[in-house]
Amino acid sequence: MKLSDLAAATFSTIENGSPDLEINAAAGLDLAMEGEVTFLANPRYTPRLAATRASAVFLGETAEAGRTDLAVLRTRDPYVAYTLALRAFHPEPALEPFRHPSAIVDETAEVDEKTELHANVVIGRNARIAAGVRIYPNAVIYDNVSIGENSIIHSGVAVREGCEIGSNCIIHNNSTIGSDGFGYSKDVEKHWLKIPQTGRVVLEDDVEIGANTAIDRASVGETLVKRGAKIDNLVQIGHSCTVDEDALICSQTGLAGSSVIGKRVILAGQVGIAGHLTVGDDAVLTAKSATSHDVEPGKVISGIPGFDNKEWLRSTAVYRKLGEIAKRLRDLEKRAAERPD
Amino acid sequence: MKLSDLAAATFSTIENGSPDLEINAAAGLDLAMEGEVTFLANPRYTPRLAATRASAVFLGETAEAGRTDLAVLRTRDPYVAYTLALRAFHPEPALEPFRHPSAIVDETAEVDEKTELHANVVIGRNARIAAGVRIYPNAVIYDNVSIGENSIIHSGVAVREGCEIGSNCIIHNNSTIGSDGFGYSKDVEKHWLKIPQTGRVVLEDDVEIGANTAIDRASVGETLVKRGAKIDNLVQIGHSCTVDEDALICSQTGLAGSSVIGKRVILAGQVGIAGHLTVGDDAVLTAKSATSHDVEPGKVISGIPGFDNKEWLRSTAVYRKLGEIAKRLRDLEKRAAERPD
Amino acid sequence: MKLSDLAAATFSTIENGSPDLEINAAAGLDLAMEGEVTFLANPRYTPRLAATRASAVFLGETAEAGRTDLAVLRTRDPYVAYTLALRAFHPEPALEPFRHPSAIVDETAEVDEKTELHANVVIGRNARIAAGVRIYPNAVIYDNVSIGENSIIHSGVAVREGCEIGSNCIIHNNSTIGSDGFGYSKDVEKHWLKIPQTGRVVLEDDVEIGANTAIDRASVGETLVKRGAKIDNLVQIGHSCTVDEDALICSQTGLAGSSVIGKRVILAGQVGIAGHLTVGDDAVLTAKSATSHDVEPGKVISGIPGFDNKEWLRSTAVYRKLGEIAKRLRDLEKRAAERPD
Repeated sequence: MKLSDLAAATFSTIENGSPDLEINAAAGLDLAMEGEVTFLANPRYTPRLAATRASAVFLGETAEAGRTDLAVLRTRDPYVAYTLALRAFHPEPALEPFRHPSAIVDETAEVDEKTELHANVVIGRNARIAAGVRIYPNAVIYDNVSIGENSIIHSGVAVREGCEIGSNCIIHNNSTIGSDGFGYSKDVEKHWLKIPQTGRVVLEDDVEIGANTAIDRASVGETLVKRGAKIDNLVQIGHSCTVDEDALICSQTGLAGSSVIGKRVILAGQVGIAGHLTVGDDAVLTAKSATSHDVEPGKVISGIPGFDNKEWLRSTAVYRKLGEIAKRLRDLEKRAAERPD
Repeated sequence: MKLSDLAAATFSTIENGSPDLEINAAAGLDLAMEGEVTFLANPRYTPRLAATRASAVFLGETAEAGRTDLAVLRTRDPYVAYTLALRAFHPEPALEPFRHPSAIVDETAEVDEKTELHANVVIGRNARIAAGVRIYPNAVIYDNVSIGENSIIHSGVAVREGCEIGSNCIIHNNSTIGSDGFGYSKDVEKHWLKIPQTGRVVLEDDVEIGANTAIDRASVGETLVKRGAKIDNLVQIGHSCTVDEDALICSQTGLAGSSVIGKRVILAGQVGIAGHLTVGDDAVLTAKSATSHDVEPGKVISGIPGFDNKEWLRSTAVYRKLGEIAKRLRDLEKRAAERPD
Repeated sequence: MKLSDLAAATFSTIENGSPDLEINAAAGLDLAMEGEVTFLANPRYTPRLAATRASAVFLGETAEAGRTDLAVLRTRDPYVAYTLALRAFHPEPALEPFRHPSAIVDETAEVDEKTELHANVVIGRNARIAAGVRIYPNAVIYDNVSIGENSIIHSGVAVREGCEIGSNCIIHNNSTIGSDGFGYSKDVEKHWLKIPQTGRVVLEDDVEIGANTAIDRASVGETLVKRGAKIDNLVQIGHSCTVDEDALICSQTGLAGSSVIGKRVILAGQVGIAGHLTVGDDAVLTAKSATSHDVEPGKVISGIPGFDNKEWLRSTAVYRKLGEIAKRLRDLEKRAAERPD
């Protein structure tokens, strides 16, 4: 790819270097080789620019290359430009429409011809599969499911009855979309009585779901993952939750039922969210924390149960010395007791 | 469904309203519409009865409707009656016995004719599948497995060699029943030497297992999940554990090996149970807690490691202020130091 | 098996008993029956030797049987000898090479004839499957994967494009090897922009992976699990991590991206490891702990965030009394305030 094409693909402008310079890959500062483009996002790494073997670099609005032999692509956000470059060098392979003879498609299903249906895929009654969709081997699409354009369903995925997958979604292997929510009432003999889970799951467009994740159908209505939300591996989304746009939910995090995760919220790894609560837009829960109450928009929360991250950092520092604190308290008490009032 | 039929199906008695009133759905107080039945379980919501659009309501033994235009079904437990109503309005679809031509059943397996074997199901040697069983696409039943009447196995489930599934069980998608326990000894070169896992898993009747859950076979003997226990998504049950009747294990909880979970125990989300211990009947571990010791029957435990829930609540309140506590202690020490004894 | 053969199989020497004594099973001290071998690893259980019904026992270098009617196999590590005995009594079933007619193997794949390819297995382009490999039903091997000799892939497993599995590996059901890492940059509209995940996963020889575990491919290069590492069920290994030789990672533990887990490290259940850090050789993180910093070799770490296990034990003891500590501090403050300086 010529530097000029790379600039166009990454919304950058050439500040230094020939537009015809050939660039064939993108890599980090230390790994990039001749003929490759790198990036500087963190000013801390500026000294490494002197040593990089890269032929070009994405720089933010104020950074300086300090070298004239390095092509400079000026851009608003070097990391985004780098991501766009990686995407340009590693495009999704083109769709190769086919239906493997072993794929089993119910006669009532509507499957666009421009799709890849790999070996042993099973598609149920009245399912609708749009153009550009790829369904990898042994994935199972239950009855009445719809899948929007260009979505990718990997092997072993189950999309349960009636669920809806938007366009440009990716669901990685062995994830389950739409299994029953975990709902029971206790009868007079203290046995659990299953509450029918009659709702479904809706994933809007541009949602990515990792591997081995489970998203439960709503008891009534919809469990909803909105446009652009990204969910990692081994995540639990309980029945009737809503995950709002551009939320990011890291691995092994779990949401109990009926909670609402706001726009652009980040839930780090192994977080726990209790039921029937709201995490406000742009809030962050750090790894392994949990909340059983609403979280205000924009707050950063840590701990079990979670509270303000800065206060939590203070508390954790003291916690390490808690044995000593207890001893100091005993010493003070002893002194106080030894002295008359 | 007529009100009189609904009353019969829910073990309720009509206190107000025509037995011929048509009821066609069940929903919560705020969502129920005309022609639907709702319920009042928590007295706190009594004022909402005035505004509900429902045509009928399940009330407990002492509650009052406060309206004469609302049919009243008197019942011992309104939530159970509501659950029974939902079940009456949403019955499991009737079995449609068939064996999809792509299903691969070993010739030594005994499969009742009144079963649903969906596409690409694989059933191994000497497996026994009872009447009423439904096995969804791409599920794999290894050799020597038995599955009892009316159980449902969803797509992607693996039931490993020799395991036994009772009657009326449900196993949701991509769960694994009977993978090897995690057992090794360390040889002289400090390499791990695999200990054969020669046992199996037994699920008794009425057990439900969520999606993407893993239950390990015993090293010797049985990993046992007893009648009526309910296990959520992404749960780990280690080798040789026993989960007793009507226990409820929420998502992402993990049991190490050889522990015993008592009757009606509730393990909330993301709980951790160490190996070789007993959680007594009716005990509760709240979300994200853990125990490495036995838990007495009926106790409510929180924290890592877990202790009495009420004391834990006090401790968490102080923990939030731990930075300030440390400062106050320093201040007292300073005052004490400044003053002669 | 004769006692003499058992001794040879377990690197033990007969100290007491006839070399021709028939031994047909191995079991624990309390469970072993006549004709079986047991072991004594922990001196605490020595008194039970008097009551065991076993016919033979593995003893360490200094232990005494205290009985003459019990055959004694002297060995360096009785638990290892017992494991070897179990392995001798429960050998892996012999390979039965076959390719089920429903297995779908791309014509460009190289599959050794001495393999078991079970029903509905799917093998992609240019895959290489070595002799002795068993692939159970409905497993999916994507394009360009290689699997080394004698490895076992259970049903529902996905091995994604380009990944490499060594020899003598076992991957249990429904695990995912090589799904995309969780990498995004945030564009100017605050939408997540997917970073191509162009690397792969390499499992070296003798690696065992539990059920429903997810190991992400590297963003660039390799996610690497080295020789002899053992990984339990429901574990998350993030992109570009390295798990070194003989590490042991228990159930529901998660590693964020680019971390390095040293040789023989033990991560107990539900541990969390943040990104871009190193856990030194032989370190241990106890259950439910987490670290966001490097851990020194050989350290035992607990807590969230983790610190020295012994100090943590002290802190947890005080934590249980934190409500009382706060009250005692208030009392001291009150006394101090009531008294003139």
